Formats: sequence, structure tokens, C-alpha cells
Amino acid sequence: MDMPKIAIIAFSGTVDKLMPVGVLSGAAAAIGYEVEIFATFWGLMAFRKDMAEKNIRFSKEFEDMAETMMRIMKEKNVPSWVELLRQAKQLGNVKIYACAQTFDMFGMKKEDLLDIVDEVVGAGEYLEKAKDADITLFI
Amino acid sequence: MDMPKIAIIAFSGTVDKLMPVGVLSGAAAAIGYEVEIFATFWGLMAFRKDMAEKNIRFSKEFEDMAETMMRIMKEKNVPSWVELLRQAKQLGNVKIYACAQTFDMFGMKKEDLLDIVDEVVGAGEYLEKAKDADITLFI
Amino acid sequence: MDMPKIAIIAFSGTVDKLMPVGVLSGAAAAIGYEVEIFATFWGLMAFRKDMAEKNIRFSKEFEDMAETMMRIMKEKNVPSWVELLRQAKQLGNVKIYACAQTFDMFGMKKEDLLDIVDEVVGAGEYLEKAKDADITLFI
Repeated sequence: MDMPKIAIIAFSGTVDKLMPVGVLSGAAAAIGYEVEIFATFWGLMAFRKDMAEKNIRFSKEFEDMAETMMRIMKEKNVPSWVELLRQAKQLGNVKIYACAQTFDMFGMKKEDLLDIVDEVVGAGEYLEKAKDADITLFI
Repeated sequence: MDMPKIAIIAFSGTVDKLMPVGVLSGAAAAIGYEVEIFATFWGLMAFRKDMAEKNIRFSKEFEDMAETMMRIMKEKNVPSWVELLRQAKQLGNVKIYACAQTFDMFGMKKEDLLDIVDEVVGAGEYLEKAKDADITLFI
Repeated sequence: MDMPKIAIIAFSGTVDKLMPVGVLSGAAAAIGYEVEIFATFWGLMAFRKDMAEKNIRFSKEFEDMAETMMRIMKEKNVPSWVELLRQAKQLGNVKIYACAQTFDMFGMKKEDLLDIVDEVVGAGEYLEKAKDADITLFI
């Protein structure tokens, strides 16, 4: 029987919204789910090598709490979203796709992106992968 | 036959995004759907007793319209999101789960949270509940 | 056999989040999927005739990049989200519903909305349409 599958469109590029992409992917991989992530728009830019580490954007509504949040996550040794995704990929079947439209629009090269990105695919191609997922999310 | 099920991850803690959590839950409960809500990150903080009532955060992009929106909702007697969830729970099978990771990270206690919260569960445990839902949303 | 179906709740009214509503709908329509969009709250206001054209709201977190983004999309001849939805409707089976609750709350009239909006429906009615979708998203 097929394992359950979760398909996440990672659109938002803020740290606080990349965290659930990492946490849910890790939790899903740990219980044997397939995970298929489609990084697009601001979400894809967050996967650029030169952006990922220094990204400190937080949802504006909670900007006043961003510093406290970052401090607590550090104290509690919560891994970064990149680290969470890296661990998820080691644990199970986790694929990360870069949105071809965004990729082309910004003239990106494959080597600009973190090595955890597997492939560049179009939106239609991703829908074909997502359509038999049990859980579909736009984050 | 099983009733349809909707699974909502309530991540955003702004009033305007908590409204659809309440409205969709109420609409779903009214037509007999099971509802399973997972409150996490800013979304879980909104369920703190000392936060829920005084929460006036609105999506920043529409901050200029927040006051008008709040006034219209008041004039039209639109219930608050907390009230909508309370009504939904009276109408049907609606469960609200607190994200264990967020709960632990902020050293919350169960009594800090509104009494409409049923249980603290981990992300993996929630995925197991959500995977057979007909509609899955990240709000 | 039924075609796959994608159900999108278009809640956010910013240009950057309306783009994926348009792009995903277009991609889905092109491969024969049914598309059912439920425009609600800020998302419905974006469909007002007097708002759609002059909408330049962008996610606040990336406001510093909004101008560059708009310029690049113009240079690359990326159609507007309205144009993308119009094309999607020509390509395939794409329905756009206005949320009755929002519609009533703001005293809207059907003629206030872009002609690509098909019908005004309640949240419960939309859930009935969305429940057999293969992909469900809240954008």
C-alpha cells in the first residue's frame, strides 16, 4: 500500500513560516509519509544559498516578538528550518522542488539554490505530484 | 459512512485570519463535518486566555482598513472568532488541538489556554488525524 | 472518470498572493483539472471592479522588493492575476465564487465584482464543492 503523502507549497519566505515547512516535513518523514515541497516566489528566494543563512524576515504582524522568538528558539536548540529539512531528507522520502516560473523569472541558476533542492519543475507538473497527496497545504 | 472531515492548521494569530478558522469550522460543523484544528505558533498564542480578548492584530497589509472592518463586524453583530469556535463545538464534532512543540517552547500550561482547547498533541500525531480529512488548510 | 479538482480559498488580497491563485488555476485548467475558487474577505475585495486594477498591495515583509518584482513581471510580460484567471476560464472548467458572508457584510452588489466571478455562495456550500477536491489550499 502507498504511504500517506503530504504536499506543501512553500510560498512565504519568512523564517516563522518556513519553520512549519521544516517541522511538518520532519514529523511526516519520521512517520514514513512521502513529502513533496514546492518552493515558489518568496519561498524559493529563501532557498538561495546567499539568502538562507541571513534571512531574518518575520511576519510583520509579530515583528515586535521576532527577537524574543529567535532567542527562545536558540536557547531551546530548535534547529533552523534548513536544518529541519536536511534532517527530514535523511529520515525519509522528502523531495524539494523549485518552481520553474519563479526560477526563470529571476534568472536563477540551479547552483544558486541550497543543495537540498532536488529539481526545478513547473506548476502543472507539481500539481500532478500533489493531486494524490492526503494533505495539501499552502504555507 | 464516515462524515466528511476538515483539518485546519491555525498558524496565523491575527484576528482577520482567525475569523475564517471560526467561520469555516462553524459552517462545517453545521453540515455535519468533523473538524480538527491544530493551533500552532502565533495561532496557539492567540488561544491564550490573557491574549484572546485583547487581540487586535490584523494583517499588516490591510492595517489601514482594520478599524473599519472591526466596526462593521460589530455593527453586523458578527461573533468573535472565539465565539464562532465555541458555537461550532456546540453544533458538532469540533476538536481543537494545541501544538506540543509550541506549547513546550513557550513553557505554556494547559490552564493558560482557552477552555475550547481539547488537548496538546505533537505535529506527527496531528498529521495522523489530518491525513484522512477531505479538506486540509493552513491558515 | 472524474477529472482531478483543485479548490482554492483566496483570502489574501495582496498582488503577490493573488498571483499563485492565477498561476495555479491556469496550470490546473491547462491539464484538464476542475478549479473552484472561493474569494473571501480581503480576497473578495480584490475582485471589486474599482479595486482590481489599482491594487498594489504586497506582503509587507517583502515591501522593499515589491517595486523590483512588479518591474520584472512587467519586463517578462507576466500577465496580471486577473488576466491569468481570465485565461484559465477560457482554457478549462474554472469557477470563481464570492463568499456570501463577506459579500453581505460589506453590502456588495454583484455588479461591483469583476465579470469573472460566477456566483455568490455561502461557506458551507463551498465546503460541499471542495470536499471532493484532490488539492485544497488556503491562499
